Amino acid sequence: MFVNNAWYVAAYADELTDKPLARRILNQPVVLFRSPEGTVAALEDRCCHRGAPLSYGALCAQGIECGYHGLIYDVQGRCVLVPGGHRIPPNARVRSYPVVEKDGFVWLWTGDPTLAQRIQPMDYPWSHDPAWSERHDMYPIRSSYLMMVDNLMDLTHLGYVHGRTIGGTPSAHVEARMRVEKTPDGVRFVRWMLNSPPPPTYVKAGGFTGLVDRCQEFRFVAPSTVLQWTGAVDAGVGAYQPASPQVKFAFRLFHGMTPETETSCFYFWSMALLSPDRQPWDELFNDVAATFKEDQAIVEAQQARLSELPDPPLVEIHGDGATLQARALIERLIAQERAQPPTAAVG
Amino acid sequence: MFVNNAWYVAAYADELTDKPLARRILNQPVVLFRSPEGTVAALEDRCCHRGAPLSYGALCAQGIECGYHGLIYDVQGRCVLVPGGHRIPPNARVRSYPVVEKDGFVWLWTGDPTLAQRIQPMDYPWSHDPAWSERHDMYPIRSSYLMMVDNLMDLTHLGYVHGRTIGGTPSAHVEARMRVEKTPDGVRFVRWMLNSPPPPTYVKAGGFTGLVDRCQEFRFVAPSTVLQWTGAVDAGVGAYQPASPQVKFAFRLFHGMTPETETSCFYFWSMALLSPDRQPWDELFNDVAATFKEDQAIVEAQQARLSELPDPPLVEIHGDGATLQARALIERLIAQERAQPPTAAVG
Amino acid sequence: MFVNNAWYVAAYADELTDKPLARRILNQPVVLFRSPEGTVAALEDRCCHRGAPLSYGALCAQGIECGYHGLIYDVQGRCVLVPGGHRIPPNARVRSYPVVEKDGFVWLWTGDPTLAQRIQPMDYPWSHDPAWSERHDMYPIRSSYLMMVDNLMDLTHLGYVHGRTIGGTPSAHVEARMRVEKTPDGVRFVRWMLNSPPPPTYVKAGGFTGLVDRCQEFRFVAPSTVLQWTGAVDAGVGAYQPASPQVKFAFRLFHGMTPETETSCFYFWSMALLSPDRQPWDELFNDVAATFKEDQAIVEAQQARLSELPDPPLVEIHGDGATLQARALIERLIAQERAQPPTAAVG
Repeated sequence: MFVNNAWYVAAYADELTDKPLARRILNQPVVLFRSPEGTVAALEDRCCHRGAPLSYGALCAQGIECGYHGLIYDVQGRCVLVPGGHRIPPNARVRSYPVVEKDGFVWLWTGDPTLAQRIQPMDYPWSHDPAWSERHDMYPIRSSYLMMVDNLMDLTHLGYVHGRTIGGTPSAHVEARMRVEKTPDGVRFVRWMLNSPPPPTYVKAGGFTGLVDRCQEFRFVAPSTVLQWTGAVDAGVGAYQPASPQVKFAFRLFHGMTPETETSCFYFWSMALLSPDRQPWDELFNDVAATFKEDQAIVEAQQARLSELPDPPLVEIHGDGATLQARALIERLIAQERAQPPTAAVG
Repeated sequence: MFVNNAWYVAAYADELTDKPLARRILNQPVVLFRSPEGTVAALEDRCCHRGAPLSYGALCAQGIECGYHGLIYDVQGRCVLVPGGHRIPPNARVRSYPVVEKDGFVWLWTGDPTLAQRIQPMDYPWSHDPAWSERHDMYPIRSSYLMMVDNLMDLTHLGYVHGRTIGGTPSAHVEARMRVEKTPDGVRFVRWMLNSPPPPTYVKAGGFTGLVDRCQEFRFVAPSTVLQWTGAVDAGVGAYQPASPQVKFAFRLFHGMTPETETSCFYFWSMALLSPDRQPWDELFNDVAATFKEDQAIVEAQQARLSELPDPPLVEIHGDGATLQARALIERLIAQERAQPPTAAVG
Repeated sequence: MFVNNAWYVAAYADELTDKPLARRILNQPVVLFRSPEGTVAALEDRCCHRGAPLSYGALCAQGIECGYHGLIYDVQGRCVLVPGGHRIPPNARVRSYPVVEKDGFVWLWTGDPTLAQRIQPMDYPWSHDPAWSERHDMYPIRSSYLMMVDNLMDLTHLGYVHGRTIGGTPSAHVEARMRVEKTPDGVRFVRWMLNSPPPPTYVKAGGFTGLVDRCQEFRFVAPSTVLQWTGAVDAGVGAYQPASPQVKFAFRLFHGMTPETETSCFYFWSMALLSPDRQPWDELFNDVAATFKEDQAIVEAQQARLSELPDPPLVEIHGDGATLQARALIERLIAQERAQPPTAAVG
């Protein structure tokens, strides 16, 4: 069960070049492509003639041409040509999905198309703000996207999973002061770790020589995106707010966890660093990339175990607050969708 | 669901040497072997004692010896020896299949054995006609054999899938004149492409310098074999019939698509070339082999998609005539078999 | 269906060092580890907090620490620490399994814990008897453990499967004199092969120059272990009993076939050789290791075939006596367990 009436990151905009891109989104095979005019389109990746994947075909002036028998579809999924100029059957079309290209992402909506027009995908201006330097990657992950949401909503794992990189001492994370609050579209929390030893990554990137005050803000937008602000200052200077000018080390992270199947997802993550000229940027990016591989390893192991043994109940502990709020919100959205069938035929 | 009362190619005759050959045919594990007298046999590949595959065993004077505990079976599947001379249980036997070795193929019948005697497998004398030169190969394909039947029954795909080899221009294929007709055991079609540019393979093999008239005859024998005649002459000389003596470039192709499972098959294909001394034979064979790999790629992608999304209906277009006739015939044969149970116990 | 009220080899004692060991036993994910005091523990390999495998964690003074959020469990599976000193939920525990470390093996019990105290795992003193030299290995096998029990209970396969190593001539095995008897906990058989040519392994290891009298004793302890005594003397010296001092070539083999899933198992095998200084020990061990790979190949092929075709009945032949007795005993134990539910809650 997925939330369908929501925007999911389907691709990075720079992935759509002169070839179609096949990607399974919420269990649906989708082909993404950019038309000659630059419009991004997302169609069902299955020709309505003999079922071949359209992603095996080629882009053309009118849209996309099936690589088997040459039917051409436009960006709305309508068949606009049967080779030889033969009659186009009236039902010759494939499903098209609402898509929005924005801030370097291609967002896709699998639910009711009429609702898609009322909601905008999350803003991420840091991807193209000249004051910030951005890099990104995507990891295919063999776990439900929910495991990744959990992972981001409970940072007490940092000391255990990421001790060698961004973790720092476990106790600093566990004892962090934290404020969790509901937002109109999700959950937000801010954490402060005052007077804590900076983890290796911070020392390398921020040039800290003593203890630091760390601050992190995580904004979860249901069901599948998290926008993160992370920064640190020398301990005691009082810059406890994310946007404080005293912050000498700050970055934004975007996390988009798009379900591929019930037990796999695409993890799109982007990192934008303030004042990149002051930082060993590539090294920091590579450290973060390695950190997220650590997350991947643990969530994949977790998924494997839960798939094997789904029944025994799990227990809740002190650090689970934000995780449980995020999960409850997702469940509520799914229940709402089941109660309210689409207002219009999906096509 | 398969047609059981039919001959399927199970192997090339030259595959049966001094070792048993294991092959899954219509979802049934079969062991094929040649007795010392040269008789080809096909047995259930499962010892009736402890279930070990007989194909792990060895050929012997009396038939085949199980590699686990040494039971010996004759070519009829009867256990003829229990080691130590101990009593042979009366039910110690495995199923044997009717087989016919003919024209370089081993044909196998999974249905009612009494019907097997009334029907002969297709002739393919070109495999051993001294005027023709023959080569063959077998591709294991991860799609239903039906996708391969479709592929051969609709040649409008040539321009899209095989542009680099035998394809030629898409429009030439789409606009080809074509006559489709039913035959007593299948479907036959003949296609003419007059005044068309010869594809690269034809130029290399036939030495054409200008436009050509191409002619192709495809004879589908339900459920799983296609016999093809292909030829070309310089455009305008009028040799529109396959067997015309003016044809300066001609070959026969045999296509045997034997189901392994519901979604995989063995593609046996043989090519026989007239007057091979006039042709760069190996290069042509290699081009055709590469062409069939292109078919394999698209039908495997098609199968994967249809396995994921079997339900949405497909639409029919102008070029589907022969495909639909072949499919309808196969469906009819399956329905007939279901209505008429075997006349004798299968054993 | 497995026998649960029985000891199974879960690991070699020397596998438990400073890291946890994950192993699936009777379809249950288990983590095995040794506490700082040297106690061996076996817990459900699934943290009760978020389901991560405990085997991804680290050993610590109090037991094992989850590698995700740091919960610590003691050797009884009780959570004894939630990071930050937060409240430990009363139901924060994972299942623990009775384990016994003995003779170099770690034995595990998945059934009723109260019954585990009344039964001892099999003795295998040869693993640490200074007069004997021991080596061991474990093969993960893609077949039910029952195929391995069958394999050991019917040695007529030796001539067919192991002709190149320990087999010798097939007829010697088939015609061996054999006595099968029930024991309180299993089946025992003794086989004599008098005046038989020694197989290559025996010649190398025992220095035989002529025919030998071979004697083998196999003691099956239901459901999953076999203790073997094998020896040979020069033919005619009369040493027909396993423990005879005239025996110049003798070894003990321990076979522990522990179910991983219904169709896979761990094959723990240990070999202990008397008077190792008189023998080319490593070469013999390597020959036996290769022999057991031959068994692995045939039982995996057998399992594959029986998984494909489970229904057609199998027939019984003369050599099946001990196999059928062992199988019948296992079935009886399973039936008994189903009739008598556990006396105490398992936990």
